[in-house]
Amino acid sequence: MESSLIRVGMLGCGHVGAALAVLVAERRDEVARRTGLDLSVTRIAVRNTAIDRDVPVNDDAFTTDAASVVADPEVDVVVELMGGIEPARELVATALSSGKPVVTANKELLANHGAELYALAEANGVDLLFEAAVAGAIPIMRPLRESLAGEPIRRGMGIVNGTTNFILTRMTDEGASYADALAEAQSLGYAESDPTADVEGFDAGAKAAIIATLAFGARVVAGDVYHEGISGITVDDIEFAADLKHCIKLLAVAEQTVDEDGRSQVGVRVHPTLVPLDHPLASVNGSFNAVFVEGEASGDLMLYGRGAGGRPSASAVLGDLIDAAGNLHGGHGAVIGDLEPVRIAPIDDVTSAFYLNLEVDDRPGVLAQVAAVFGEHGVSIRSMEQEGLGGEARLVFITHGAQERDLRSTLEDLRSLDAVRAVGSVLRVIGD
Amino acid sequence: MESSLIRVGMLGCGHVGAALAVLVAERRDEVARRTGLDLSVTRIAVRNTAIDRDVPVNDDAFTTDAASVVADPEVDVVVELMGGIEPARELVATALSSGKPVVTANKELLANHGAELYALAEANGVDLLFEAAVAGAIPIMRPLRESLAGEPIRRGMGIVNGTTNFILTRMTDEGASYADALAEAQSLGYAESDPTADVEGFDAGAKAAIIATLAFGARVVAGDVYHEGISGITVDDIEFAADLKHCIKLLAVAEQTVDEDGRSQVGVRVHPTLVPLDHPLASVNGSFNAVFVEGEASGDLMLYGRGAGGRPSASAVLGDLIDAAGNLHGGHGAVIGDLEPVRIAPIDDVTSAFYLNLEVDDRPGVLAQVAAVFGEHGVSIRSMEQEGLGGEARLVFITHGAQERDLRSTLEDLRSLDAVRAVGSVLRVIGD
Repeated sequence: MESSLIRVGMLGCGHVGAALAVLVAERRDEVARRTGLDLSVTRIAVRNTAIDRDVPVNDDAFTTDAASVVADPEVDVVVELMGGIEPARELVATALSSGKPVVTANKELLANHGAELYALAEANGVDLLFEAAVAGAIPIMRPLRESLAGEPIRRGMGIVNGTTNFILTRMTDEGASYADALAEAQSLGYAESDPTADVEGFDAGAKAAIIATLAFGARVVAGDVYHEGISGITVDDIEFAADLKHCIKLLAVAEQTVDEDGRSQVGVRVHPTLVPLDHPLASVNGSFNAVFVEGEASGDLMLYGRGAGGRPSASAVLGDLIDAAGNLHGGHGAVIGDLEPVRIAPIDDVTSAFYLNLEVDDRPGVLAQVAAVFGEHGVSIRSMEQEGLGGEARLVFITHGAQERDLRSTLEDLRSLDAVRAVGSVLRVIGD
Repeated sequence: MESSLIRVGMLGCGHVGAALAVLVAERRDEVARRTGLDLSVTRIAVRNTAIDRDVPVNDDAFTTDAASVVADPEVDVVVELMGGIEPARELVATALSSGKPVVTANKELLANHGAELYALAEANGVDLLFEAAVAGAIPIMRPLRESLAGEPIRRGMGIVNGTTNFILTRMTDEGASYADALAEAQSLGYAESDPTADVEGFDAGAKAAIIATLAFGARVVAGDVYHEGISGITVDDIEFAADLKHCIKLLAVAEQTVDEDGRSQVGVRVHPTLVPLDHPLASVNGSFNAVFVEGEASGDLMLYGRGAGGRPSASAVLGDLIDAAGNLHGGHGAVIGDLEPVRIAPIDDVTSAFYLNLEVDDRPGVLAQVAAVFGEHGVSIRSMEQEGLGGEARLVFITHGAQERDLRSTLEDLRSLDAVRAVGSVLRVIGD
């Protein structure tokens, strides 16, 4: 097969970028033999050209002028790995407008400006591919993108943040406290010194927005995502959940539902969740990621793998790069097309089962009072466990599916009962 | 977007075929809106046109003359769902030779004649797609096919036969005997009245050959696959495995290794295997399938979902159909290309850990004798459990990695010891 040279311009050369430059060089011959595409990284924009990056690329390829890489007529495909919104947005938009395909791993960019960029890619007949933006090496974006046409999706649920999954796994396996598990994650480089974006669910929220956009062809942005983090989870919660044959995972959930008036809406949220131990998501431990998809015809699917790391993410970028390069001369990949404006389900409308943990006086009649409050708000109890604590008792409930608003008013009334000393964690539960 | 009509000719209209005809009709408008492809099933070859099939296709589309469907100038894409080798092979070859893309779910055909058909597709510049041939709805063929270029794979391990996984899950969860679990699978329609192809690993073996072919770009056929089935697995084995924190799964394994002389070789085999309970494959239960892939750069990936069933398999066929149709006018998908002849690793060369279960006399010195035999053959013991049975004892071993040939000679010598009354199951174990 005759090879055609594909000149790759990279924006950014951090962890993933450096791994990509190495991977492209390592695989060059094999990729050319298999696909006829001779990939070569010819330009790299970085903030500081003085740093020695130890990548197999000529020194004169480096520049601090990112716009010049995009504009270079000798760059065929642009790979954006700089992160953040500006100037990445403008550079990507310029590349697409000038007919250059773009591969990116930038979740913030897509979660905030995806719709305009997908439209720009389509208008210019070029690819905008981003397999590495959600769940690193896991091939999830492509099946979702292609699903728009062939396979309506009811719901996607993902463990898409490795830091929080590492922390929750440590708390579960070692009985470590949240603070200790976080400190360990920080010392291993899995968590940043300010861990807010991970532990409060912002990172997972951006990914949830991208998943919802692709799964439902709907305009969903990061700001639409409801989120709760894991900083309030205690070892007690994890132990109670284990007694009930569940583990606790931070899930990003995107689902298509209808509101009371029958209007279609999309729910997108991130929160700690009780997952039954026999559910495939329960086996996703440590820094691994997974996305569980409920397709209308395909049934349940789960895609599992490394959600981060230079080489795993670079492998996903390389896959996109081969696709985009292959489409340079004729055709391009599955089109995301026009995204429809969509009603975002208010969190009050969402129905799920709940786990509640109450400290109450240990005397006759208390359970009846508590149960009556659930009943008044139409919240039905699936299971209850009681344990004495000497003078007080702990009641652990799992409810049947209930609306958030009903659960919230149940909680208000429970808190006003004299016999209820404290309402502990309230967590959502996934089921069958 | 302007739609172009794509006329689909189907060969066969059984379970998957009927579901496909329904799915194509259901999704027609949405597929056209998203992709510009207006799919229509216009011809269907069946064995008997008198059967009412309740599919949304005109009666005059049906014919018993399969060759006429392939030859029809008004058929743009051929979908082969008849199964078996002939006449499917000839029909698929004719379609490809005349420049028509083919989508098939026929694992026997690909496991025996894949190389010639992939070459024919490439020579004619058309697609031959077969996502549904292995693990039904799970998107595994595409990542493997594309991996040929970008991502060298070290090993693939799959639970790719739902019948045997259902039986093993029943034995594990309910303590059912093999015979009872098989009978239940038969009564539910999961197992055929002659279950040999499933329980002895032939079905999984054909899929293993296809996985090995795509993962390694190597010519591997069904006859190259070593296989052992599950009919010898007892409830005792499952319980001993559980004590050792393992479950038992029938795995299809394809791996790239080197022989003693440093020559590259491919090992392909199907056998019952002890899987650690915290391995993601351990959570794949009932009739679900999964393929676990160890990629060189991507790291571990697992793809999980429905391995069979009309609608799940039809959803995979529809995905391929959209791809093939989209490529009709310019370009085609990732090329499998020329498959290299490859050395198939003899089973004696394969290294793995083993589980062994021995009944021995319960008297001093027996364990020392048994341990000496392992030592003579260089097989190292990772763990041992002993339980008294009154007069006799049971020894359950897990070894470190050992070559099959050494394990085999160990077993011969163990059988010749007076103190060894019986050698029970010998099973392979996967580890980290």
